[in-house]
Amino acid sequence: MITKSVLKFIKSLQLKKNRIEHQRFLVEGVKSVRELLNSDIEVDTIVATSDFIRENRNDFDPGLITEIKATDINAIGSFKNNNSVIAIAKIPMSLEVSISNDEYVLALDDVRDPGNLGTIIRIADWYGITQIIASPTTADFYNPKVISASMGSFARVKMQYVDLASKLESYQGEIYGALMDGISIHQQYFGSGGVIVMGNESVGISKEVESILTNRITIPKFGEAESLNVGIATAIICDRLRNS
Amino acid sequence: MITKSVLKFIKSLQLKKNRIEHQRFLVEGVKSVRELLNSDIEVDTIVATSDFIRENRNDFDPGLITEIKATDINAIGSFKNNNSVIAIAKIPMSLEVSISNDEYVLALDDVRDPGNLGTIIRIADWYGITQIIASPTTADFYNPKVISASMGSFARVKMQYVDLASKLESYQGEIYGALMDGISIHQQYFGSGGVIVMGNESVGISKEVESILTNRITIPKFGEAESLNVGIATAIICDRLRNS
Repeated sequence: MITKSVLKFIKSLQLKKNRIEHQRFLVEGVKSVRELLNSDIEVDTIVATSDFIRENRNDFDPGLITEIKATDINAIGSFKNNNSVIAIAKIPMSLEVSISNDEYVLALDDVRDPGNLGTIIRIADWYGITQIIASPTTADFYNPKVISASMGSFARVKMQYVDLASKLESYQGEIYGALMDGISIHQQYFGSGGVIVMGNESVGISKEVESILTNRITIPKFGEAESLNVGIATAIICDRLRNS
Repeated sequence: MITKSVLKFIKSLQLKKNRIEHQRFLVEGVKSVRELLNSDIEVDTIVATSDFIRENRNDFDPGLITEIKATDINAIGSFKNNNSVIAIAKIPMSLEVSISNDEYVLALDDVRDPGNLGTIIRIADWYGITQIIASPTTADFYNPKVISASMGSFARVKMQYVDLASKLESYQGEIYGALMDGISIHQQYFGSGGVIVMGNESVGISKEVESILTNRITIPKFGEAESLNVGIATAIICDRLRNS
């Protein structure tokens, strides 16, 4: 059985400052832990209930897992109904994103909501985009809500926090930005690579980054809704990238 | 000031059985209430905090509004941070959806999550789709979480709960269904109208409805994610409908 100090340590990783200090993050739930174990990310420990261990003995090496009471796992996790498994993993060291002309990179300019970020990571993974750069004000990749909403895609997509304007200024290829008054994505030709910038949920792309865009693009509206959620908009644009 | 029995009545409308009994639903938050007032939906009462009434006296007729304490509005509403306004509105009587060949109708086969349904209503409204039919097991249109996630689009989109298989069997036009093994939406030509069927979050479209489809369509995958959320998938398909 697990000690109180370990329980306390795990729970502390729900906060960003503790994740940074210890360079560790939490992965909760069976699907996400499975994807973690299939990735290159280093795993420190896995804690799971006795029920989980019994039901998954063929899938998970029991030697990797420490047993924990169901009440304890609920107390330390961020899910309301995680009664199964939590892994403690090491934040990868090398997260340098390189932007070429042969592939697409997403750039997130102050996307604040962890659910939106997780959704965007999942969409990137669906469309074969494995690199994201983001402003330091964007939600934390290792927030448990982001990990959860990514539905396992966190294990395949890497994300670097950068000064977006400087990083983009040094790039010579196409930089597309989603705005309300750009060229319709139904008219835009997308080549084999470049950067797609998605902005903040309320105010969109910052003026500084907007001035660096090479292409202003827009999702055309046929009805009356005022806006689309940033995750939805990312998905629609990624689908066009792959078949414009 | 408002009586305790009115407070109790308002709170009761968070539950579907009470919404059905009284044929009333709640609209929470300033944006949604604004859209409600711009629609044909009948409004019984609006309750709001004194701060809200003072700040919005030019936008809202104060005669329409009953003042309520901020603590009371939090107690009866479903939002965690609604400290402003809730409207009680009448469920419209006439919600018959007619399917023609000149426009698109969405059909939801057991979409359970209220957040997903609200997102789908917002996407439909963006793409000019004003009619949705849904299986009786689909989330309730008048659930406060659906109303909220629709971001005001609930006021412009109508939805009818039907026996999906019977309704679709009587329709002579194209019935597209989103499945894992259909024709790529990048290859599919979409005409001027028809039905788009979206299935349940876990199991997709039911066998019964699947057998009635005229076109099986798929969003092609370029990476590794296992699936896309049903709201995201609806958005990608709607964008293709408008420019295939």
